[in-house]
Amino acid sequence: MYLRLLEEFAAQGVDTVSSEALAARGGTTSAQVRKDLSFFGSFGKRGLGYAVPDLVGRLGDILGLERTHRVIVVGAGKIGTALSQYHGFGERGFHVAAVYDADPRKVGDSPDGLTVRDVRRLERDLAADPVDIAILSTPAGAAQAVAETLVRAGVRAILNFAPVQLEVPPEVTVKDVNMALELETLSYALRQEGAEAGRAGQEGKAGN
Amino acid sequence: MYLRLLEEFAAQGVDTVSSEALAARGGTTSAQVRKDLSFFGSFGKRGLGYAVPDLVGRLGDILGLERTHRVIVVGAGKIGTALSQYHGFGERGFHVAAVYDADPRKVGDSPDGLTVRDVRRLERDLAADPVDIAILSTPAGAAQAVAETLVRAGVRAILNFAPVQLEVPPEVTVKDVNMALELETLSYALRQEGAEAGRAGQEGKAGN
Repeated sequence: MYLRLLEEFAAQGVDTVSSEALAARGGTTSAQVRKDLSFFGSFGKRGLGYAVPDLVGRLGDILGLERTHRVIVVGAGKIGTALSQYHGFGERGFHVAAVYDADPRKVGDSPDGLTVRDVRRLERDLAADPVDIAILSTPAGAAQAVAETLVRAGVRAILNFAPVQLEVPPEVTVKDVNMALELETLSYALRQEGAEAGRAGQEGKAGN
Repeated sequence: MYLRLLEEFAAQGVDTVSSEALAARGGTTSAQVRKDLSFFGSFGKRGLGYAVPDLVGRLGDILGLERTHRVIVVGAGKIGTALSQYHGFGERGFHVAAVYDADPRKVGDSPDGLTVRDVRRLERDLAADPVDIAILSTPAGAAQAVAETLVRAGVRAILNFAPVQLEVPPEVTVKDVNMALELETLSYALRQEGAEAGRAGQEGKAGN
């Protein structure tokens, strides 16, 4: 998130930024900003603030963004197809190299872009052409088996959109994105707000 | 997440579940499970565990899932369109009522489903037909202005897919989903793993 904020400042032509300005933009405190950034090294100069372009570059390095990452998408449903074409990935150096599906009616399709490959080719393809990250967007019932194939093929990072908790070995990192869960969190916030409508405004957000 | 896990147990026909079993499935400790669930009320019976169907119902009530939520999607790009058709929302009681876009080439289209409406109708439509939650999937540059329209129209919960930090009044809850940021987190985990490859396995995940 700091990288995002700093890029916004850079785009506005800002050369140096104080921890206070970062805190105001990021909805946190300047002490928290200094603490967070100090975790990654000594970046700021007391009284001068942070050199924006320098810090953007260094945070990018820390995140491993100096190189391009090869990504595959498994599951060519609506979400998977949208993700395989998402421009925001390419802009950050994430290159979607292939899309897979198990449905023979989808295999061979090219919904403006990559041709959907048969998921039975997945392990062979990965042996020939390893990838860094797999985006898993299959139905819930298929996700665990695909995850196991990915792990066998050496994939160490999975972005999981299937609404299921994957079981993977400890050396594999999984990030879950559960769209419905996000809406449920908002539903809960709304419900708290409703329940607390009588009280002073701000408390309604405690459910976050 | 507990609701998800409990639903999995329910689907397997499990009637009662121990905090240990929930902890094993959820990757946490039984003490944490008891602590988390006690936050919402007194659900379990010592030595007997949790009554699965009962707890599913009560967590659903707490999350406000006993009722249907009206949702709109603003931004009919690939992600927005995929979300507007996502079955997982309907299954959880989130009903996508309308989709909006600013692009006249998209307005009037019905990419298998809802007809895309002109975003200039948004405020008028919401006055006539309020919604609970808005999914914001516009380009970054348009997001803040749309958010302000939504807030003016009384929307109190926004699921934001635009890669920008929205500024909204405190009574409005925003949840951000940033796809590229998720991949960057994975890139960081991979980089940590690479850097620590010489050391014992588990530490490589410290970047989470």
